[in-house]
Amino acid sequence: MVKPQKSKDQILKEVVELTLRLTSQGKKITRFEIGEPNFPASHRVIRGLTETLRKEKVVGYGPAAGLPELRKALAAELSAEHNTRIEPDQILITPGGRFATFAAITSFVSSSERVLIPQPAWPAYEECVDFIKGRVIHFNTRLDDGWEMDLGRLETQLRKGVRLIVLNCPNNPTGKVMSKKKFVEIVDLAQQYESMILSDEVYDKYVHAKSPSILESEGENFVYVNSFSKQFSLTGWRIAYLVTTKEKALRIRRVIQTLITCVPEFIQRAALVAIKSGRTEAQRNINSIMKKVELTCRELSRIDVSFYKPEGTFYVFPKANKPNFDSARFAKLLLEQYHVSISPGEAFGNYPAFFRLAVSLPAGQITGAIRAIGKATDAWS
Amino acid sequence: MVKPQKSKDQILKEVVELTLRLTSQGKKITRFEIGEPNFPASHRVIRGLTETLRKEKVVGYGPAAGLPELRKALAAELSAEHNTRIEPDQILITPGGRFATFAAITSFVSSSERVLIPQPAWPAYEECVDFIKGRVIHFNTRLDDGWEMDLGRLETQLRKGVRLIVLNCPNNPTGKVMSKKKFVEIVDLAQQYESMILSDEVYDKYVHAKSPSILESEGENFVYVNSFSKQFSLTGWRIAYLVTTKEKALRIRRVIQTLITCVPEFIQRAALVAIKSGRTEAQRNINSIMKKVELTCRELSRIDVSFYKPEGTFYVFPKANKPNFDSARFAKLLLEQYHVSISPGEAFGNYPAFFRLAVSLPAGQITGAIRAIGKATDAWS
Repeated sequence: MVKPQKSKDQILKEVVELTLRLTSQGKKITRFEIGEPNFPASHRVIRGLTETLRKEKVVGYGPAAGLPELRKALAAELSAEHNTRIEPDQILITPGGRFATFAAITSFVSSSERVLIPQPAWPAYEECVDFIKGRVIHFNTRLDDGWEMDLGRLETQLRKGVRLIVLNCPNNPTGKVMSKKKFVEIVDLAQQYESMILSDEVYDKYVHAKSPSILESEGENFVYVNSFSKQFSLTGWRIAYLVTTKEKALRIRRVIQTLITCVPEFIQRAALVAIKSGRTEAQRNINSIMKKVELTCRELSRIDVSFYKPEGTFYVFPKANKPNFDSARFAKLLLEQYHVSISPGEAFGNYPAFFRLAVSLPAGQITGAIRAIGKATDAWS
Repeated sequence: MVKPQKSKDQILKEVVELTLRLTSQGKKITRFEIGEPNFPASHRVIRGLTETLRKEKVVGYGPAAGLPELRKALAAELSAEHNTRIEPDQILITPGGRFATFAAITSFVSSSERVLIPQPAWPAYEECVDFIKGRVIHFNTRLDDGWEMDLGRLETQLRKGVRLIVLNCPNNPTGKVMSKKKFVEIVDLAQQYESMILSDEVYDKYVHAKSPSILESEGENFVYVNSFSKQFSLTGWRIAYLVTTKEKALRIRRVIQTLITCVPEFIQRAALVAIKSGRTEAQRNINSIMKKVELTCRELSRIDVSFYKPEGTFYVFPKANKPNFDSARFAKLLLEQYHVSISPGEAFGNYPAFFRLAVSLPAGQITGAIRAIGKATDAWS
């Protein structure tokens, strides 16, 4: 009998629900499953929001593309960071990276057109492609290959006609940061076959060394996505931005205008404060999270799992060295018996032997929780 | 030669752009074109937002359906208001009424399916249907019929197979409030032909007498939309809500989850304050706007236009008694020569002899501006 397949969304939801149920029963759960930074939003940024509201009581509709001052500031920052020239007209402000992703996909992909999503991947890409009835091409990568994309296999797919490739570097869930050389090769190949590139770079501040960026490539067939969520711990504020050519921006702008009118101005004003005077504080918090990722890796190397040591993000994606491992079932068992919550690998593609640890929790909880994972994997059969 | 048709969106945009250009040149413009209430957001509501942010520094993702407390409060309020029983599970919180409209349409209408939109109408309905490649059926109503929908003609359309009918009562732009009897007849007819009803009731607080509501009808084939925007002057905050059956809510919830994750929690907490302790203040402001609508009507009756006296909303939709009137050209002329800004009737359907006045401006500006409109229409040829 074939087991009915659960949606990726459902797999994650079950873990969170069980976590909350156990918490409500008074259990102390070590939460390795939350994909959000755990540092607080900056006082300055919060004040940026509250001051805007205090000063201007009537806060009406704003431009669909976003606040001109914010787009100008982002253009200047991105131009300097990537040694290129980005104009404010190339930038749109969106309610979260998810909406930026959706807006890009719905603007350029028609139903039945092929979208190549390297796996493992954040489930949202696939959800957005499904939403517009596009066709998802799962492009598997493997731990044994250091999560590298095979260019030969990629070209085979591109030859069949791919409308859009999703790149996510640094990668959620693996923490992989491609070499600049590899990144450029992929971009060149995509352009050769006239495939668009959606480059999700929301973890670009969670790196030891600068990660490659689509903004440093030639060509016009791209949409760059970044977000205030992970950079400034503003996940629930729903504010992100995308960069593309001016013509493409006009097209995507229409999605914002038709679906949501605009992002609230007070949130955009706060975001402006964040990039103008919140970078140092945020980077300090990010660096502290990345130290915890290193601690996590040290602890993981003491138990019977294989993993790629992340060059970026706050995720580690280890593999249990057990045949017939079922990480969805394992996640449930780990929660119930050891009070540790993880995200099963199936949520990110066909990776039942893997699980994702999001290392945004107090450092003191890490060692014990990894040891518990070690015990639980040892006991697995 | 056929004049290339401008989009409704473009028609409105040109008026706003010219208004802003003249304003920047130091001209004082009477702005009858802004579809937003001009009273300030309540102190209490703003404090509701800022206090939430002060108390909880990490504001993370929330449930896609919306904050349980807010949904519970809305369910209680709507149940009492409409003498019915609405459960929290029937309610979803959305980033604005536009998104609620889009989410409902994309959840239940497939490409090529027919959506009947009575005209004149807020352009967003058509934009949302166009977005998902549905087929818009324009259903004209006429000033001479008191903007009533003809049931015989409606049935002819329904017989052809209509997936969804949009109702907007009180109506933007006409200010028409249907009788309860007529509303029920339309709803019954739609149900007889298995057409869904999207009932946009965002102006239901801008009335002299209670307007009919889909929440007081039998049947399950509906989505009710309302918003905090016009009720509490929170347009730029982007928060609204919809009510439907539990099953349909689960389906629409998926749109929120896929596209935006959730509405920021601090905005939802402020909305909760609004409905718990902001109603009296808001209704006082609304009543003051409605008095200005009456003043506007008195002044309009002194110039050479025909109009329906609104029973709701803060709009009046007069018709110039001139053959070959072109309200898009008139709007431009009125702005340049008389510094009065209006919305051309073409933005709401095939109504070139009409224009919309949004009466959310200081009372002192009304008399002079209407007299200017009178002079400009007299001079029209």
